[in-house]
Amino acid sequence: MKKIFLLLIGIFCATSVLVAQVLSPSDKPNRSQKLLQKRGYGMFIHFGVNTFSDDEWSDGSIPASTYNPTELNCDQWVRVVRDAGFRYVLLITKHHDGFCLWDSKYTDYDVASSPVKTDVVGEVSKACKKYGLDFGIYYSLWDRHEPAYKDKDFGRYIQYMKNQLTELLTNYGPVCELWFDGGWDKDGKEWRIPEIYDFVKKLQPDCAVGVNNAIVDKEDSRNFIMPDDMTVDNRYFMLYFPTDFRLRDPKIAHKKDKKQYLYKGQSYYLPFEHTICLSDSWNWFQKANQKPVRELDELEELFYWCTDNDNTLVLNVPPDNTGRIREYEANTVIELGKRLGIRKNKPFPKNGKCISLDAKAEATSVYENKMDEYGPQRAVDGGMQTRWASSEILPELVVNLNPSERLNKISIFEYCDTKTSDDGISNIRCNRIQSYQIDIWEQDKWVTVYLSDKLMGDCKIIRFPHDYQTSKIRLKVLKATDFPSIYEFNVLAMPDRK
Amino acid sequence: MKKIFLLLIGIFCATSVLVAQVLSPSDKPNRSQKLLQKRGYGMFIHFGVNTFSDDEWSDGSIPASTYNPTELNCDQWVRVVRDAGFRYVLLITKHHDGFCLWDSKYTDYDVASSPVKTDVVGEVSKACKKYGLDFGIYYSLWDRHEPAYKDKDFGRYIQYMKNQLTELLTNYGPVCELWFDGGWDKDGKEWRIPEIYDFVKKLQPDCAVGVNNAIVDKEDSRNFIMPDDMTVDNRYFMLYFPTDFRLRDPKIAHKKDKKQYLYKGQSYYLPFEHTICLSDSWNWFQKANQKPVRELDELEELFYWCTDNDNTLVLNVPPDNTGRIREYEANTVIELGKRLGIRKNKPFPKNGKCISLDAKAEATSVYENKMDEYGPQRAVDGGMQTRWASSEILPELVVNLNPSERLNKISIFEYCDTKTSDDGISNIRCNRIQSYQIDIWEQDKWVTVYLSDKLMGDCKIIRFPHDYQTSKIRLKVLKATDFPSIYEFNVLAMPDRK
Repeated sequence: MKKIFLLLIGIFCATSVLVAQVLSPSDKPNRSQKLLQKRGYGMFIHFGVNTFSDDEWSDGSIPASTYNPTELNCDQWVRVVRDAGFRYVLLITKHHDGFCLWDSKYTDYDVASSPVKTDVVGEVSKACKKYGLDFGIYYSLWDRHEPAYKDKDFGRYIQYMKNQLTELLTNYGPVCELWFDGGWDKDGKEWRIPEIYDFVKKLQPDCAVGVNNAIVDKEDSRNFIMPDDMTVDNRYFMLYFPTDFRLRDPKIAHKKDKKQYLYKGQSYYLPFEHTICLSDSWNWFQKANQKPVRELDELEELFYWCTDNDNTLVLNVPPDNTGRIREYEANTVIELGKRLGIRKNKPFPKNGKCISLDAKAEATSVYENKMDEYGPQRAVDGGMQTRWASSEILPELVVNLNPSERLNKISIFEYCDTKTSDDGISNIRCNRIQSYQIDIWEQDKWVTVYLSDKLMGDCKIIRFPHDYQTSKIRLKVLKATDFPSIYEFNVLAMPDRK
Repeated sequence: MKKIFLLLIGIFCATSVLVAQVLSPSDKPNRSQKLLQKRGYGMFIHFGVNTFSDDEWSDGSIPASTYNPTELNCDQWVRVVRDAGFRYVLLITKHHDGFCLWDSKYTDYDVASSPVKTDVVGEVSKACKKYGLDFGIYYSLWDRHEPAYKDKDFGRYIQYMKNQLTELLTNYGPVCELWFDGGWDKDGKEWRIPEIYDFVKKLQPDCAVGVNNAIVDKEDSRNFIMPDDMTVDNRYFMLYFPTDFRLRDPKIAHKKDKKQYLYKGQSYYLPFEHTICLSDSWNWFQKANQKPVRELDELEELFYWCTDNDNTLVLNVPPDNTGRIREYEANTVIELGKRLGIRKNKPFPKNGKCISLDAKAEATSVYENKMDEYGPQRAVDGGMQTRWASSEILPELVVNLNPSERLNKISIFEYCDTKTSDDGISNIRCNRIQSYQIDIWEQDKWVTVYLSDKLMGDCKIIRFPHDYQTSKIRLKVLKATDFPSIYEFNVLAMPDRK
């Protein structure tokens, strides 16, 4: 009886493997894609030799001995993941520098050669199990340390990768996701993705596989498409086939994000995974200096945006050189989870209906009169790469609305100037708009419903205590340091607050 | 039977009047004080000729014809009062300029002589009745228009006031409060407050009577005491006797506010009524220019502070020259009420326990080494007029705490530089602190629990997603434009959020 049972399980597993290996033309998510979409919100963990250097991307020459966390505590990392309401971890196991966060048989450039030999991959996967979270892996294709990478026979490096992936995919239990990065360093085909994909799926049938910068304008092209252009089914092409999801780190998908992409004349369904920094200054690895985090309002709005539309969000919260996630960063993501009201095993909270999407918009000026590129419609087109840009210091933007629709929230993503920070890596965003008001059209005149003389911040959210209905709404800039420009001006209707 | 009943009512009323007239030495609130404390949170309404001029305090020479609201709607004012959770209105009936918001038989300088003859006192009192709110009156003793004010026989002006008060207190139903202002223009005794108080109480026994700048350092002195000094019972003196509450507009009471004040060797109980502006720039009358409002965080914290300790808060939300409360200002107070969770007939929400009050504090520097005036203890003494001031750009403040006490919130009131606005009246507050962190002492080192590179704002509130316990907490300034200074650094324990 027991034997028959095991045999049945064997057949069942084999079938699963077979099904999972093949990416079939489809307009519906497959099993690993469905699991990815259900996970929805994960925490990215960048940790490695770069944590102990001043480089964002080191070149593989930093000695393993510099990796020296004094209070390494992977359990603490994953407690933060759980407390913040994330549903999975995406752990850097090897970044472009080639340094491995586990004891790899195939290189000495790993934790085993460092002062702190803890198998970080092991510890994190264990903690994920303990806290009931999924465990995903980031692995850089590009390797600036491993000699095989520079070998004439690139197959030697492919084998190196397969050896390491075997370690990662067989020694640490279920791996929900494999996130390949750095593919741009070679021609797409050189990575032998069909072979790698097949290899991964044989070891972990449910593992979703993705490669960064995945969508291109033509078959075999290297012109990576931005998310703002991914609004038409079957116009663009998969550079890496087969893969289960799209990546364009760290860009934000379009509100009308489409999921069908072509490969050899067939159409495949591909959700989008977002990757963004908790840091206000876009540093992926934590450095000696403590960096401020994004404001909760921006994080809230990005959460809604990025988990919407069957897409996923991975938020980077890197541990520091002591080997712990910094307390103020943990506080921010935990506070965010509380504010959003994320509950285990419950659907994610959603943003209100956006009633301004593709509305008719008008502006008092357009930069260089380039209507197509910088016209007011760009502020309501649902795209985070396009923007309305004005050609005056105090412009106005008017968005026409359907007066039968209610509204009670506005979110504004302003285009900011950026300055490089003292560290030479991270960025500081500088608002142009310093004072502004929001007006609605009511009984044949403008009525100011909000007025501020504070900087707009990284994302301004205005919440009204009750609903309005109006035929048009206006942003009027009252003070600015340069010609204002707006990525997105969203007018929303949250569920009733009474 | 009916006659006996009416007789009994008559006796009862006469007794009430008699009781109410006398302010007895007491350490407990009397009936009108209890009603004042129960009201707790009111809306101040400044409206009059100044609304139509560029003056904050006009001199009585502005013609009544300039008073010309185009869409006067007192019902709208009181709807805002109700929707925001205020429990009473305090209406300017006559400001220093002498212009009357009702048709007074005793002057032509009133609404009846203006283009819009609406009896504003009548309309507001009616709307208060309609919406179930109490109705209070502000009346300026000082009168820059009425000729009797300048008569050799000041008794003529006293009679003028009594005539007008008779109109106000007999024609508009119950009046919960009478707020006298401008007393500083004469010697205290000249106002004949005993006579006025008696007169008011005869007409409205439950009406609480107060005069601005009420407490002095010595019997018959004119040295007005600041709230920060009102922390000892029976040390200071009532300038105006009898009165039912203290005023020191627009100052904030001390956390250890005491209520016993002396008059002729007797001790009287006097709660404190706060008056503050919704406006960020402290303009009491609305002018042609729209002015920004205070941030919700500051308003929230000031609400807690000012309604605490059996004191009351009156927040000024002035209608504009159309005769309506501006929509964005209404939105702010309504949003504040929602955020606080004010409920009709329920006790007011309270701030968490302040565990830093009178804690031992240390600082890396003190301005001009004036420890008594600017020492670090000033940031935790519960007083809003005193402050810690440093003598360096990047100072640190450490507050020692009882580690058995929990904490989950911090509120910081920074001393700001002020600039006069373009209008020559209102002020702009400029933060000095531009970047800062909060650290707690944990296992023999500082751990950063909050970090920001945004301006501190008018009041910075930091909310933690869980409780901390620590023996000390630190504010570390990372960037500033001048030597930082802090009025109050409060460490609080809000009720559990889980």
